[in-house]
Amino acid sequence: MHIDELPTPVPLLDLDIMERNLERIVSLCREAGVAYRPHVKTHKTPELARAQVLAGATGITCAKVSEAEVMARAGLRDIFIAYPTAGRRRLERLERLARESTISVGVDSAQGAKDLNEYFQSRRRQISVLLEVDTGHHRCGVLPGNALEFVRFLGNLPALRFRGIYTHEGHVYADGELWERLDRARCAGETMAQLAGALRAAGLPCAVVSVGASPSQHAACAIPGVTENRPGTNALNDATQVHLGACGWEDCALSYLCTVVSRPAAERVIIDGGSKTFTSDHLSGWKEFGFLPEHPELRFVAASEEHGILKTTAGNGSNLQVGERIRVIPSHVCGSLNLHDRLYTVRGDRVVGEWRIAARGCVE
Amino acid sequence: MHIDELPTPVPLLDLDIMERNLERIVSLCREAGVAYRPHVKTHKTPELARAQVLAGATGITCAKVSEAEVMARAGLRDIFIAYPTAGRRRLERLERLARESTISVGVDSAQGAKDLNEYFQSRRRQISVLLEVDTGHHRCGVLPGNALEFVRFLGNLPALRFRGIYTHEGHVYADGELWERLDRARCAGETMAQLAGALRAAGLPCAVVSVGASPSQHAACAIPGVTENRPGTNALNDATQVHLGACGWEDCALSYLCTVVSRPAAERVIIDGGSKTFTSDHLSGWKEFGFLPEHPELRFVAASEEHGILKTTAGNGSNLQVGERIRVIPSHVCGSLNLHDRLYTVRGDRVVGEWRIAARGCVE
Repeated sequence: MHIDELPTPVPLLDLDIMERNLERIVSLCREAGVAYRPHVKTHKTPELARAQVLAGATGITCAKVSEAEVMARAGLRDIFIAYPTAGRRRLERLERLARESTISVGVDSAQGAKDLNEYFQSRRRQISVLLEVDTGHHRCGVLPGNALEFVRFLGNLPALRFRGIYTHEGHVYADGELWERLDRARCAGETMAQLAGALRAAGLPCAVVSVGASPSQHAACAIPGVTENRPGTNALNDATQVHLGACGWEDCALSYLCTVVSRPAAERVIIDGGSKTFTSDHLSGWKEFGFLPEHPELRFVAASEEHGILKTTAGNGSNLQVGERIRVIPSHVCGSLNLHDRLYTVRGDRVVGEWRIAARGCVE
Repeated sequence: MHIDELPTPVPLLDLDIMERNLERIVSLCREAGVAYRPHVKTHKTPELARAQVLAGATGITCAKVSEAEVMARAGLRDIFIAYPTAGRRRLERLERLARESTISVGVDSAQGAKDLNEYFQSRRRQISVLLEVDTGHHRCGVLPGNALEFVRFLGNLPALRFRGIYTHEGHVYADGELWERLDRARCAGETMAQLAGALRAAGLPCAVVSVGASPSQHAACAIPGVTENRPGTNALNDATQVHLGACGWEDCALSYLCTVVSRPAAERVIIDGGSKTFTSDHLSGWKEFGFLPEHPELRFVAASEEHGILKTTAGNGSNLQVGERIRVIPSHVCGSLNLHDRLYTVRGDRVVGEWRIAARGCVE
């Protein structure tokens, strides 16, 4: 089937580009001597997670228990839930999940660790945990200076098996020059490696030293002592990654096919995808909703829920007509795929398959 | 069931508040002498659309053909698709849909109207159309000065039955004082009423004169000559509507129950809902992701995909502990409900039902 037979707006996954991206990531991890454990929140698609494992991933990373449930049902067996798993309902589901699959989870608070320990102890089971460390993103995680004491505290909780430390160096998305952002990633890697050394010097085991953020993965995982890389977006890439200098447009595997639905003015083109197709996410200084590789004269400057509002750059018009189709690379691939139930895999302009985004909407 | 038995994050619809909101809207429309045709893109939930019809709506408004298909299957029979319906695949589905239900659609371009006419003519059928008018939002729509000529052009397309004109006065969401925004809405209503008069004076019928934007609905639909009101959000309301002065917090029928998952610092509380629960939508000067009625000391200042990042206001700390649950009123109810498969209806803290957000993700 040709892509023009699909209804729009529709997400298209270019398998040639995705395969090349995966090869690159796996080579990079192999050269750095670290494991590749991709974050599947980017695509929420079991087929794609399987492709990542076939390419060389040792396991996967999930954000939520419900996301991990979908992946486990699809046969993905080694799952790290990089999230503080609090709340009674979530603990029940986590314990059930951990009976069938190899599961480890993040902890970053005394209360969270105690609740986790108590629940698993009541079921006469153990769970592997990694300590989340805040290396500068200032979201979750304990500060490096408090980590040693926290790991000792974990040692008194018999249902928890401490396996190591992890961080999301998400502050590489913040403003700054490329060299500054890569420097933040290197600092995060060094902080993690030093902390692992300090833990081991204190007689505490620390098998896993895990980092993960797509725009700077080569910088963070190259630090000696880091053992694992958990990038998400760079399996597919998006306009934000290009804006951050992490890849080129030719490396963006995911795009949307859209239809022009209105031409109200010479400088304005309206397409059938807005914030309910692309999200309103803006992760960095890039403030557009997508990029149109075939129409560099157009900027995707605004979005209502079902309208994408494209404007021509100064002095330009556009010949696009109502009914014509155009390809758009989304600003944020993770948020945008989460809006859809399925994606179509393509090679060039041929549709070669349909994959269900089976963990879409799994936030529990 | 008590709400605390639900997994989080989860959307809760307070039926008492929703019913009061619907009564108010219906009274307002009755007093203004206009029909109430709510936009169901807000909730995408057939049960809620049925509640609106039972409360007095004459029919519903949809944004996309696929959304209308879901509503028609659920028994909603009088549907206006307030969107320029371009693209071959969409025309095929529209024609099928119009065989079973009373459907009208928007047009705003010569090409779109010709394609629509050609397709319906080829199937030996007719379709009702309304002309979209741009009253200042500058998204879709013909400018008022071009409308008479456009309606004459429509008269030459035999498969199209012209029924009237509609506008979305979305520029009431833009910056400005309340009086300025209400004035924009009144101007939009006056433009529409004058245009309808000019069409009739030229011998062209114009049965429907339709406006619709929640923050200013009372202003726009009170203009003599306006016949129909198509608000969406005000059936449920959200933090943006409160920010715009359109309602109070006590009028927000939709909230999310969330769990605290991390307490990394005295001034920082992390909950289990981020942009994949609430969206990143910001429709007005309100730049937060939600509002916490029970915790006015906290501001919902940032969101990653699965993390809501709450910060205390200056000089305050928070006693919230990991595992505690809190209610959040979303910034934009339309975008946030579109992320979820179901909502729970509640009266107070009791869960009384579960409704499927059956048209979620319908963007085709």
